[in-house]
Amino acid sequence: MLPSLLLLLLFAAPHPGKEPAAKTADAGDGPTYTESGELRLPEKYREWIFLTSGIDMSYSSTADPAHSVFDNVFVNPNAYRSFLSTGTWPDKTVMVLETRAAEGAASINKRGHTQSPGITGLEVHVKDNSKGGWAFYGFSNPVSAAPFPRTAPCYTCHQQHGIVDTTFVQFYPTLLGIAKEKKTISPEMLKELAPPAPAEAK
Amino acid sequence: MLPSLLLLLLFAAPHPGKEPAAKTADAGDGPTYTESGELRLPEKYREWIFLTSGIDMSYSSTADPAHSVFDNVFVNPNAYRSFLSTGTWPDKTVMVLETRAAEGAASINKRGHTQSPGITGLEVHVKDNSKGGWAFYGFSNPVSAAPFPRTAPCYTCHQQHGIVDTTFVQFYPTLLGIAKEKKTISPEMLKELAPPAPAEAK
Repeated sequence: MLPSLLLLLLFAAPHPGKEPAAKTADAGDGPTYTESGELRLPEKYREWIFLTSGIDMSYSSTADPAHSVFDNVFVNPNAYRSFLSTGTWPDKTVMVLETRAAEGAASINKRGHTQSPGITGLEVHVKDNSKGGWAFYGFSNPVSAAPFPRTAPCYTCHQQHGIVDTTFVQFYPTLLGIAKEKKTISPEMLKELAPPAPAEAK
Repeated sequence: MLPSLLLLLLFAAPHPGKEPAAKTADAGDGPTYTESGELRLPEKYREWIFLTSGIDMSYSSTADPAHSVFDNVFVNPNAYRSFLSTGTWPDKTVMVLETRAAEGAASINKRGHTQSPGITGLEVHVKDNSKGGWAFYGFSNPVSAAPFPRTAPCYTCHQQHGIVDTTFVQFYPTLLGIAKEKKTISPEMLKELAPPAPAEAK
């Protein structure tokens, strides 16, 4: 899902105070929808499996961002366990991309960045074969969201660069080795793992 | 635990290929020890509750680091659930600090940082009242570790600056609000939440 950070900025809104409930999500952790067909925000995603954090990633710009941002990625436990044994994602996979402001020196910390208490964006990538496969949802409120239209650039970008089943497993440190072992990265996608091109010769 | 990043550098060693097992840790997720009294590395800590990631944090230096590093913090689910209801940590709390290199532009990502597949350090902070309370363990291998001596600076730093029961809840975005609500931050520690002092007047 990591692709549409730019879109996220359009859809981002702070949702402070939405804390996870006490129980661990496990069985029945797939997507659920409102009567009108919007995806409900998974209430307990902060208790799901953490895949990675990045900072200031962009798929389109090399310019320094005006404000630094962390992105945290979580996946539902059932899909994670399936990935461990197969190297790819099952039906009913739900991945949550949460963004938080990167704060500077604070408290005892003198440099680098820590994560803000407030959330600045939430986007969810869902594989639901009963709805035509993968879809992206950008949350402007912490309750429910409609999917991005199929023409949105996140779909194209994930199809072109997501190395496992249109997802960015190249950035998930504990899953990349499993995908390699299970050979679920197509030959075409292996090029995404090549080191970046060297700087132009002088 | 976030305190002893410098110590971590001394104790750090890569542990690639140590992947979490398929089942979610839950009941019985407290610390376990070898016969000689070393703490065993919790095998499934990547399936525990993620608290936060930081980058390039330092409690002693404002200078830019030679290499950028992410730190990820996880806690055992039982302790997390207890914190949600009480605002502080129970006996048998286990917090894992995992560090990974911050990689630059790669694959489709053009800027910022993503996390390396290899781990560069593992440190664990355990509250075990049968062993005298909180102790820090630095892992130079992915199996077991002896505690740091009580004279190590991590103990002093956590006592002086950890706002909840000697832990750095000020950096855990989903827990800070709970500690405030439950009033488990002592008046003395509230000063740690003040914004950093302004730069010196010219």
